[in-house]
Amino acid sequence: MASLISKFFNTTTRIRHKTFILTLSSWVLWGSIIGIIVGSTSALLINFNDFLTEVREANPVTLFFLPIGGIVIGYIYMYYGKGSRKGNDLILEHIHHEQGKIPLRMGPIVFLCTFITHLLGGSTGREGAAIQMGASISEGVNRLFKVNKIDRSILIISGISGGFGSAFGTPLAGTLFGMEAIVIGKTKYEALIPCLVASFVGHYVATAWGIEHEHFIIKSVPDINTINLLKIIGLSIIFSFTSVMYSQLRHEVKRLSDKYMKNLMLRAFVGGIIIIVLTYTIGSRDYLGRGLPMVERAFDGHVPPLSFLAKLVFTAITMGTGFRGGEVIPLFFMGATLGNTLSSVVGLPPSFLAALGMIAVFSGATNTPVSAFILSMEMFEGKGITYFFIACLISFIFSGHHGIYASQKIYEPKS
Amino acid sequence: MASLISKFFNTTTRIRHKTFILTLSSWVLWGSIIGIIVGSTSALLINFNDFLTEVREANPVTLFFLPIGGIVIGYIYMYYGKGSRKGNDLILEHIHHEQGKIPLRMGPIVFLCTFITHLLGGSTGREGAAIQMGASISEGVNRLFKVNKIDRSILIISGISGGFGSAFGTPLAGTLFGMEAIVIGKTKYEALIPCLVASFVGHYVATAWGIEHEHFIIKSVPDINTINLLKIIGLSIIFSFTSVMYSQLRHEVKRLSDKYMKNLMLRAFVGGIIIIVLTYTIGSRDYLGRGLPMVERAFDGHVPPLSFLAKLVFTAITMGTGFRGGEVIPLFFMGATLGNTLSSVVGLPPSFLAALGMIAVFSGATNTPVSAFILSMEMFEGKGITYFFIACLISFIFSGHHGIYASQKIYEPKS
Repeated sequence: MASLISKFFNTTTRIRHKTFILTLSSWVLWGSIIGIIVGSTSALLINFNDFLTEVREANPVTLFFLPIGGIVIGYIYMYYGKGSRKGNDLILEHIHHEQGKIPLRMGPIVFLCTFITHLLGGSTGREGAAIQMGASISEGVNRLFKVNKIDRSILIISGISGGFGSAFGTPLAGTLFGMEAIVIGKTKYEALIPCLVASFVGHYVATAWGIEHEHFIIKSVPDINTINLLKIIGLSIIFSFTSVMYSQLRHEVKRLSDKYMKNLMLRAFVGGIIIIVLTYTIGSRDYLGRGLPMVERAFDGHVPPLSFLAKLVFTAITMGTGFRGGEVIPLFFMGATLGNTLSSVVGLPPSFLAALGMIAVFSGATNTPVSAFILSMEMFEGKGITYFFIACLISFIFSGHHGIYASQKIYEPKS
Repeated sequence: MASLISKFFNTTTRIRHKTFILTLSSWVLWGSIIGIIVGSTSALLINFNDFLTEVREANPVTLFFLPIGGIVIGYIYMYYGKGSRKGNDLILEHIHHEQGKIPLRMGPIVFLCTFITHLLGGSTGREGAAIQMGASISEGVNRLFKVNKIDRSILIISGISGGFGSAFGTPLAGTLFGMEAIVIGKTKYEALIPCLVASFVGHYVATAWGIEHEHFIIKSVPDINTINLLKIIGLSIIFSFTSVMYSQLRHEVKRLSDKYMKNLMLRAFVGGIIIIVLTYTIGSRDYLGRGLPMVERAFDGHVPPLSFLAKLVFTAITMGTGFRGGEVIPLFFMGATLGNTLSSVVGLPPSFLAALGMIAVFSGATNTPVSAFILSMEMFEGKGITYFFIACLISFIFSGHHGIYASQKIYEPKS
């Protein structure tokens, strides 16, 4: 007993505790700084995207400028990008190999290009921009405070957390997302404190700027029984394959662009043209921009049966040819509409399957099952916890090593 | 596009998919077998513990036989244990180093000794027994199906998941617990499918055997604001230190026993005597056995201010001198009573702090923050999600590399 007490108070232990408290304080400080800046920039991003979406919807003619916007975006990345065009993958590579320095300008550039994409009708979301801004800001903090090499990566991860948490108003999922997205099958707990702080501070700062996030409501959750569980497992596999289909198609569009249209301006121009042609071919503008009204419809009513596929193609072309924004809201769109469509087939409530689809497609595409599960708890207030848990894990398993982030490292094979 | 489709259907891919489906099916099969057996044994464990607790409470004289019970337990482990007395740590060592073969008899022996401990009033829980039975059963499946080396460890992890999920009626936390408990700071995702299957099947089988788990209800959750968040952070640090105090005291009791009382019968005999003396010194039998009534009181009313400390000492002596059962329910007891006590100090609702304390102490002692968080979602129906999330992470960080499992490997330092 005495030895136990003395162990607690001897000098080595005291020094260790002092180091612990010092390290902890600097993480809290850096995380807070990152959170404050990222939360503010995310608020700007969301408000401006909302505004640009209104402008676009009021002026349908803007769509015809999408190819021109593509040229501008291509030009910016070609001449001013300093390597930042690799976007999220650059951040992942930087964390893995200390390769591909993160340029500070990455954040402002991706914001500008996201605004152009939103105004002109590209099918895109927001978290790519928020995350890249978060990483830029972290890199700024790194340079300002001359942070050492190992801690640099950790701060950049916390920038990802801050970006995600503030972009979606989900600080819990944001915390985990940074740690989980970097390596498939491994959670980087050493980044826990700065991720937690950056994500929460980022969220509260964005809220303080008046940001209100979308609310989607599950109207009823089916009872848990064997048949329903089997249905959910089957559906989760379908959602998982949808995520794979999207990831593969987007990578394929990019591969073809790299091969046949090396010029970034040309490929985005062509991408813009294809989006215009597709829009007029199917005669609907529902797949342009973020498409939040359609996600709402998936929770409240019914959506056209193949809308998930339309969004999948629109987004793969938009993102694959170099437009900017993010893929999470489009993934939510695909999952929610597919869930809605499948609800009449399997006889489960549409709003519940819309929610399940959103989360499962997200889990499969990002390979972050725990973040996806926590996201479902935050978005749907703890409803249907067992189903969401199963859906996240099954979708993660079945998406194999496919996913939207080509530079995610594989820590251990999933099975 | 064509290359994309052909990629999906070429032979290598087809073989890979076939292997995937075969591997998956065997995991589901093995996980189910383990789940069915573990679920049944957990049901037996819980029912028998309930029965023995009733017998003990109706016959206070049983406590005087605790030292004799200790001799019996010591005798069993000395002459029939085949190394299984290291309990949970043996399982962890086996998974890490393929060392310390898991004897099939570990399960039956730990059950018998848990029953003796419960009947005679040792302060203990159940999950140690459930987990060790799970591991034994997995080892049985391993030998029966001649599973290869890597997969053996994975199956044993799924035995842990099945044991935890069925012992507490929390299949989600059970799934994660197996994967998270093995290595601090690393989740073993490769064990995901068998853990998921074993934990869910285990839980449903135990339910089918008529097991009903304790329900603790949070009456009100405080609003989220800066002051409350700071209070929760402070409290989480206190809960974390409580978990460290318990882990250290138990390891210290064991160390002293190893040093001064090499004979297992002697140390448990002495442990039994100390428990009797303590019981009559403080004049209360509340700290014997599982102590579930006191946990209920922590949610419904008020508990004596130092009851957490009493339970801490009773359990450290019981477990440190070789009695059996588990430490999770005692940890719940410490956290819930301490939370209840602190509620009047910080001015937050007692039932809420009881719940928070349970989860935070568990997170710090087991070093499984995500499982602890999910456990809170399962036990308290998604109430207070933000607070629980913060409490689990803070408690995990502040418990450092201390914890109840001495053989937990440290993957990466926490900070």
